[in-house]
Amino acid sequence: MRMYDIIEKKRDKHELSKEEIEFFVNGYSKGEIPDYQMSALLMAIYLNGMTAEELKDLTFAMTNSAKVLDLSSIKVPGKYIVDKHSTGGVGDKVTLIVLPIVASLGVGVCKMSGRGLGFTGGTVDKLESIVGYNVNIPINDAIDQVRDIGLCLIAQSSEIAIADKKIYALRDTTATVESINLIASSIMSKKLASGVDRILLDVTVGTGAFMKNLDDARKLSKTMVDIGNLAGVQTKAVITSMSEPLGRNVGNALEIKEVISFLLSDEETLFSDEIRDLREIIFEISAQMIKMSGVCEDMDKNREDIKEAILSHKAYNKFIELVKAQGGHICSAYMDWLGTNMDMPVLNDKVRYLKEIHAQSSGAIISIDSRRIGEALVALGGGRERKEDNIDPAVGFEFAKKVGDKVEEGDTILTVLYNDKAKFEDAYEYIENAIFIDKVDDEVTASLKNKPHILDIITE
Amino acid sequence: MRMYDIIEKKRDKHELSKEEIEFFVNGYSKGEIPDYQMSALLMAIYLNGMTAEELKDLTFAMTNSAKVLDLSSIKVPGKYIVDKHSTGGVGDKVTLIVLPIVASLGVGVCKMSGRGLGFTGGTVDKLESIVGYNVNIPINDAIDQVRDIGLCLIAQSSEIAIADKKIYALRDTTATVESINLIASSIMSKKLASGVDRILLDVTVGTGAFMKNLDDARKLSKTMVDIGNLAGVQTKAVITSMSEPLGRNVGNALEIKEVISFLLSDEETLFSDEIRDLREIIFEISAQMIKMSGVCEDMDKNREDIKEAILSHKAYNKFIELVKAQGGHICSAYMDWLGTNMDMPVLNDKVRYLKEIHAQSSGAIISIDSRRIGEALVALGGGRERKEDNIDPAVGFEFAKKVGDKVEEGDTILTVLYNDKAKFEDAYEYIENAIFIDKVDDEVTASLKNKPHILDIITE
Repeated sequence: MRMYDIIEKKRDKHELSKEEIEFFVNGYSKGEIPDYQMSALLMAIYLNGMTAEELKDLTFAMTNSAKVLDLSSIKVPGKYIVDKHSTGGVGDKVTLIVLPIVASLGVGVCKMSGRGLGFTGGTVDKLESIVGYNVNIPINDAIDQVRDIGLCLIAQSSEIAIADKKIYALRDTTATVESINLIASSIMSKKLASGVDRILLDVTVGTGAFMKNLDDARKLSKTMVDIGNLAGVQTKAVITSMSEPLGRNVGNALEIKEVISFLLSDEETLFSDEIRDLREIIFEISAQMIKMSGVCEDMDKNREDIKEAILSHKAYNKFIELVKAQGGHICSAYMDWLGTNMDMPVLNDKVRYLKEIHAQSSGAIISIDSRRIGEALVALGGGRERKEDNIDPAVGFEFAKKVGDKVEEGDTILTVLYNDKAKFEDAYEYIENAIFIDKVDDEVTASLKNKPHILDIITE
Repeated sequence: MRMYDIIEKKRDKHELSKEEIEFFVNGYSKGEIPDYQMSALLMAIYLNGMTAEELKDLTFAMTNSAKVLDLSSIKVPGKYIVDKHSTGGVGDKVTLIVLPIVASLGVGVCKMSGRGLGFTGGTVDKLESIVGYNVNIPINDAIDQVRDIGLCLIAQSSEIAIADKKIYALRDTTATVESINLIASSIMSKKLASGVDRILLDVTVGTGAFMKNLDDARKLSKTMVDIGNLAGVQTKAVITSMSEPLGRNVGNALEIKEVISFLLSDEETLFSDEIRDLREIIFEISAQMIKMSGVCEDMDKNREDIKEAILSHKAYNKFIELVKAQGGHICSAYMDWLGTNMDMPVLNDKVRYLKEIHAQSSGAIISIDSRRIGEALVALGGGRERKEDNIDPAVGFEFAKKVGDKVEEGDTILTVLYNDKAKFEDAYEYIENAIFIDKVDDEVTASLKNKPHILDIITE
């Protein structure tokens, strides 16, 4: 078998066989096929697509390109180990809130997360803004931790899905990332290699996501759900909106702060309009995960339990347990709205400068382009342009206003937290073009404020 | 400017600007852009095409990626330096016959040729079957030689069109060779960098050529003619048939022998049916070159002069002059059909074995697949699978029968000359499947024998 013939076949729009797909996945993982042949093939796949059969073969070949984790030692009869994966976004701290909630309700979670690249952030980077938090603990210790506290949250293991890692790095430099087939096989190969029983996918759609429209998001969801089910792993996708940044804070330490605030909300705050986007997504995804885990099928009961886990601080305490278990530093801090001291993670959150960004005109905020906000964070040093870049965990944005909010000229829309004046200038260019204000009537404002955040659920 | 954005733009079917094209051509020549990005871009160009404007910019950028030769020192007032290029084939010794003919008639020729790769042969390899012939003389010495004897025939200089050389090597391993745009820009960038005034293209079509049908050959011809004319270099394309191997011999030394026979033909042989394919192509291309060179506009007179140059041995003597000038060894050999001794190049033509291949049934030869014959030559060791392969100049095939010839079961169709029995077995598999015999009526036989070899001429 020759790589040349495989490239030629895909170039000419023919279907590749299982053997051909295994040949290039294994050959490339072992370094026997050079990058330049692989990138030509990836571009041909990008432009000519793949059949469902090819996609399944590609995903399974990548899953099996290295070790597949064995989680049988933490398996509890009648319960399933559920993984949760987001296709990424801006201000997306959903994993960090959902996991302590569901773990506090008896759902075992052993989760591996990625780092941020380009305009999307990464859960692992956010966790590393906690002083001492170790994302690189050995997989066996992580499994022990799940047995002890029901939860671990670590970086993607370098031992699994090696082919995907190499292929992803190449796609990232050859403009072959945004392919539904390649995204689906990359995500699902990692998830299947992580040894879980069930997978819940949070497929984001909007300017700050890979999928720009609902149709593509549905296509990607369906593709991944099909692959999961073919592999015998029940898979479900929740499609969520990522047109404006999610929640109020964007930036690594700032998002951890928002996680803490959310998990320590009182009832009034939790059901306030201010955090509607985050609340809707957190409740849906947590309730789905509890259902899939076999803990409880009743979605209404799950929602009640989630509310209770938050208001009782059970979920917050699970979060603190997680941070402690993975070496994160904890201090005691006075929470004014609770009127008491609480354990809190110590954050790398020192910034030199604050700058408020004001509305240039009066009206309502029609849109906040989350991709541009993500790029502004990269410009500020809070994200990566290249894999090897270091990030500044403290910088970012706090939004005072969101889409649908009325503003008067001069009102503060957001505050920028930064450490480097030149980088602020770079970031400001993105911010300037990210926010669009217009005079519209109250009906439009209301419809903007009330647009749904759960756009669809794909189960088969 | 970033290579990533250029790949993305072409991937999404947008037109690249002149600056973007120059950026990747120069960046890649200098080694600043890695192979894996270039191969992804080439696949995107292959699949999404290029506009006429992009193609012109690509060709000119490759032409200017290194030195452009200055042939002004050999320029004669009122006459133009004409280059001749073939898109390649099997048994294609046209250059080796045409150049001595036109040089003997006053057309100055400074020609750089390529080596064979895959199923197509290369003029430089054929010349190297002459003991001592040096294809690598410095370009300034080559120009002096044109001034002295009106002709040089050397290997492609490593100093010109460097970008094309690197890009071609990459295309060759990433299944991006057979693209009309990429073929056109590769050929034309080299031709334009060689400093000639006019270009005559021999665009081959058929199983043994890159272009498999006349439509594609016309498209490629038109594309190259347009680029040449845009560069201010008058360009013409003659489309010739390459469905069966050209002439009677295939193999390096064997083809030099056929060149010698052709140039020493008496009138009866020259106009015999046996060599009709070669004669038609040689006369057309030679006459066109003489016309383009400014020596004589009258095509009928040119044909008469060509005939005279052959029958008087003027053309043959020019060939011997060329071989001597470039260090080739000459011996004196008795030519039985001339009844006299003649100077002849000494060839590396010793083979250990001969094997006649016989007709398996009676009827007429319907087709001889020239691609398979080309691949059989590679299998025999007479061609290259990879650039670094050495070739055996002596091996090859002598055809006793060609398409349209009637055969009885057991008649010899061709003789295989070889040095290695295992390689013969490999080659035999290709030969077996290359020749198709069927019982057909005389009308069909006649139409097969009389099909034209000049299929079209593209002048604009």
